[in-house]
Amino acid sequence: MTMKLYCFGESGNAYKAALALELSGLAWEPVFVDFFNGAARTPEFREINEMGEVPVLIDGDETITQSGAILFHIGEKTGQFMDAPRSEILRWILWDAQKGTGQQGPLRFLMNFLPEDKRPKEAIGFVSGRVQAALKVLEAHLTGRDWVAGEAFTIADIACCGYLYYPEPFGFDRADFIAIDAWLSRISALPGWKHPYDLMPGSPADRA
Amino acid sequence: MTMKLYCFGESGNAYKAALALELSGLAWEPVFVDFFNGAARTPEFREINEMGEVPVLIDGDETITQSGAILFHIGEKTGQFMDAPRSEILRWILWDAQKGTGQQGPLRFLMNFLPEDKRPKEAIGFVSGRVQAALKVLEAHLTGRDWVAGEAFTIADIACCGYLYYPEPFGFDRADFIAIDAWLSRISALPGWKHPYDLMPGSPADRA
Repeated sequence: MTMKLYCFGESGNAYKAALALELSGLAWEPVFVDFFNGAARTPEFREINEMGEVPVLIDGDETITQSGAILFHIGEKTGQFMDAPRSEILRWILWDAQKGTGQQGPLRFLMNFLPEDKRPKEAIGFVSGRVQAALKVLEAHLTGRDWVAGEAFTIADIACCGYLYYPEPFGFDRADFIAIDAWLSRISALPGWKHPYDLMPGSPADRA
Repeated sequence: MTMKLYCFGESGNAYKAALALELSGLAWEPVFVDFFNGAARTPEFREINEMGEVPVLIDGDETITQSGAILFHIGEKTGQFMDAPRSEILRWILWDAQKGTGQQGPLRFLMNFLPEDKRPKEAIGFVSGRVQAALKVLEAHLTGRDWVAGEAFTIADIACCGYLYYPEPFGFDRADFIAIDAWLSRISALPGWKHPYDLMPGSPADRA
């Protein structure tokens, strides 16, 4: 049965799920959530996900939320992208939720999707500091290795790259991070890889 | 063999690991990390944990970092506190890393451990908004149920309560969250429960 993914193009967390589905070759279809008009915070949406967020994966009678949990679900279901010690995959997916994309997402929102006169400079500075520190950890980790966990492409790579292909600026320039840049090129060379705006409905262009 | 936990009293993330070890009845001892003098960011410490953070659990020849990964390690090792669907435990531990304690920790730091004249008001306001929104999600989730995942106390409860027993203010008042308050009382009534400052070395009192 075709899985359904509640998502929208701008969400790097939804992108992780969409990319894992696509690379796994699973049958899935997106369900657009109109986040920028508040659709993730309605009582109706909270009936689907009490956390009030995308992504949400519907797989038969199972509903899975939180991108990291969806990645484990897809990885365990297909047996793909799990070829590393599970503890190491888990550790990097948790790190990513706390310090990687978990900070990049809000920063990109503040810097791009708020009206220019409402962008909080000091808050942006604070979150930027956290984002840069985490990117340095990832850069050091990827220096001399090809993948985040173990020696193969895994769901940990999908988690950590969730916000790094988007064009909207949040202080991440691939030219500043040689190992991350090479790693992103390895991922985007995988068969079936797609850019977030080509994989999910909704993009800034639609709202321009 | 006695496990070692790199930690310090003020870290709610380290507290999660310490509390899980203590409630599980495992033999462990703390290794104090002098975070407030930069000890988590030294090259020597990065040899132990490239992420530059506590907690770090040393169990024989295994080194485990990220509190959520340590919780799974302890839960799987002892078979305790895992009595809920694994996907549901994982989902809440990930949510907590991103939106729960993952935001509460930095907010508490900004509001209490920076010198008063260096506390960034706008950044505090931004993170506060995120912390309050997440507390509302947790309050709604716990309303009418005793535990975070499934029907028993699990490592998901340990994750989500990591910063909620500390005295330093960060806009969380138990009186404002009836269900969270009752849940915290259930946890602290468990045999062997200890307050973070009674479980790990280091506290603001030591530095006063």
